[in-house]
Amino acid sequence: MAESEDLSSSSSNSSSREDMHFFEGVEKLLEIWFAPNPANKNADLRKIPRPMWDALLKTVRCEIISFTRNDQIDAYVLSESSMFVSKRRWILKTCGTTTPLQCFEPLLRLASEIAGYSEIEDLFYSRKNYKRPELQVSPHRGFEEEVAFLDSFFDDGRAYSLGAINRDCWHLYTLSRGGGGTNKILKRNNHIHQLHQQQQQHQHHYDDSQMIEASMQPDPDQTIEILMTELDPKVMAIFTKDECTTAKEATQKSGIHRLIPGMIIDDYLFDPCGYSMNGISKNCGKKYKEGCYMTIHITPEPEFSYVSFESNVASSDYGELIERVIRTFHPGKFIVTVFANKTSIAANASREIEHLGTIDQWKRRDIQYSRFASYDLTYAQYCKYPS
Amino acid sequence: MAESEDLSSSSSNSSSREDMHFFEGVEKLLEIWFAPNPANKNADLRKIPRPMWDALLKTVRCEIISFTRNDQIDAYVLSESSMFVSKRRWILKTCGTTTPLQCFEPLLRLASEIAGYSEIEDLFYSRKNYKRPELQVSPHRGFEEEVAFLDSFFDDGRAYSLGAINRDCWHLYTLSRGGGGTNKILKRNNHIHQLHQQQQQHQHHYDDSQMIEASMQPDPDQTIEILMTELDPKVMAIFTKDECTTAKEATQKSGIHRLIPGMIIDDYLFDPCGYSMNGISKNCGKKYKEGCYMTIHITPEPEFSYVSFESNVASSDYGELIERVIRTFHPGKFIVTVFANKTSIAANASREIEHLGTIDQWKRRDIQYSRFASYDLTYAQYCKYPS
Repeated sequence: MAESEDLSSSSSNSSSREDMHFFEGVEKLLEIWFAPNPANKNADLRKIPRPMWDALLKTVRCEIISFTRNDQIDAYVLSESSMFVSKRRWILKTCGTTTPLQCFEPLLRLASEIAGYSEIEDLFYSRKNYKRPELQVSPHRGFEEEVAFLDSFFDDGRAYSLGAINRDCWHLYTLSRGGGGTNKILKRNNHIHQLHQQQQQHQHHYDDSQMIEASMQPDPDQTIEILMTELDPKVMAIFTKDECTTAKEATQKSGIHRLIPGMIIDDYLFDPCGYSMNGISKNCGKKYKEGCYMTIHITPEPEFSYVSFESNVASSDYGELIERVIRTFHPGKFIVTVFANKTSIAANASREIEHLGTIDQWKRRDIQYSRFASYDLTYAQYCKYPS
Repeated sequence: MAESEDLSSSSSNSSSREDMHFFEGVEKLLEIWFAPNPANKNADLRKIPRPMWDALLKTVRCEIISFTRNDQIDAYVLSESSMFVSKRRWILKTCGTTTPLQCFEPLLRLASEIAGYSEIEDLFYSRKNYKRPELQVSPHRGFEEEVAFLDSFFDDGRAYSLGAINRDCWHLYTLSRGGGGTNKILKRNNHIHQLHQQQQQHQHHYDDSQMIEASMQPDPDQTIEILMTELDPKVMAIFTKDECTTAKEATQKSGIHRLIPGMIIDDYLFDPCGYSMNGISKNCGKKYKEGCYMTIHITPEPEFSYVSFESNVASSDYGELIERVIRTFHPGKFIVTVFANKTSIAANASREIEHLGTIDQWKRRDIQYSRFASYDLTYAQYCKYPS
């Protein structure tokens, strides 16, 4: 297989690596849920104006290149991946050598001063292991550095590595009020002292409403990610200007538009190659206030091909969706992660994925389940065989 | 609580740390199952004579201080923890700044030249995070270094970190023939080339018998470990020469002899403090050919107290055993790990521990399940509250 020959030659000949073209497709994914503000029912992250997002994304080393919205979610295609802004949920997914944790402080300030939120309810920072970690920029030069950075903000964040850490794996830093502790309280820090003071004032009141809230059922929520490597070069060729002149052509030709029906698609084909798409939909059930989305990002070069699929679409059986995605892209290896809270119809995803030992020619090599304060997580890794 | 004050003062005043007495109770645990040798039915690790074990343990930086046996298992108390030798299973558990991975090559050589084994069937190297990793000796200065060392021997070992890696966690390197790959083949290596050549010769024959064996049910096997920190100083005082003059007195006074009935106990009380015990039993069911054991090691100093409990006793309900152990030692925090293969009566341990959200005043903070090639693993971490 030409692809794996390319891969082995690039990794064995390290002296010439510096000269080779390389792009890190693996994204850093930051998802933050702000706690509803009892003193401000109109709090909304979408109040933050575009120039402020532009400035914030400069600290991340990327920029907005396309935008679409519905009445639940603002969806941005970025020069490096995507950003989704809802009333109280913020998602930033960026690839390459971007530095999303660098925008953490400015984001908290905008959330507090403009959007009206002073408390984080849940935070998830996650990524697959990088293909070339040595090319990353601080504080992203390794998971330890990323954890130390986040630990400087939070007293009770928890860091996990799922999968075989000497092979394909996936890192997660998470923080959840559901844990019943002080884990949502930012540490004293000069830079965000103002926010901290606001939090202190709300704290007591909050703890009470918290008790009531805890006895209530949370809104259902779930996220599935499928992170694929060593993809079929024939499929990857679709996402080049050589083969397609427009993003829409690539979307149709690959079958991306059929993966989740009913999505309004905003797609982008990079020159000479590379592809990003955001899909948004209102057909995710009435209970889902923060908007339904999907997003796909493709690094097609055979030497370091990478495709990520992510969606918060609810399903009691992700098997079919996983099959559609991997039959579309034909990865050599892939990781699946599913987060689901207890009211989600995906709450049994772990048992369902447990039964997916083999999908077509892909065989599962790892499966791990973790119970966190508010969410259950299922992690699985598959390889094509014979490889 | 005096204990936690001691702990916080020792960690905040790092400049005086060098002068403080410290002992790393956290053990490195290496368990190796050699594959039955079809050409040599009399292969047996217990053929390795005592002087050779003495020499091997010198490379680990520890020595034998007591010995007991039955017809299934040889049990050694070491200056730093324990060693158990059965027909084809070898367990080495060592604390302090010992270097168990340094004996890996000599062990493989003894297994091949004296005991009659040339293939590893399963290997597990595991440990809790160290309290003071900076005091460890190569190749044990961090999990990354330990993984790199083991990866230099094996092509397909898999390394995992369970639990929150920025808090209490537990590391595992595992290798299993059950994975169906080439993972049991040692890499070409001058030092163990002879063993490797023997393996090559047996390889083809082995792969065939392997196919047959894979369709057979494995002998049931399971291991439970309970790793405890921040223990009740009143309980810890039992394990000092101040309070007890003999090991037997400490065993009886603490209630260790009641934890698992029917164990023949070999216990040792260190001067001025510290305690180790091995228990062996033949009452573990006829199917259990490699012998049943338990082992406990205690570092009682309040500044760095640590107790480990380990046993391969079979149970379909470890809840009662976990309760007995933690009510005996009163830890501030503890980790439970359970390995069980599919024929073990502990195969449902994960679901059972899932229901143990709270045990007395201990509350679970983490639970993770992993399916490996031959074993399922459950990891859970608990904290006492209010802490």
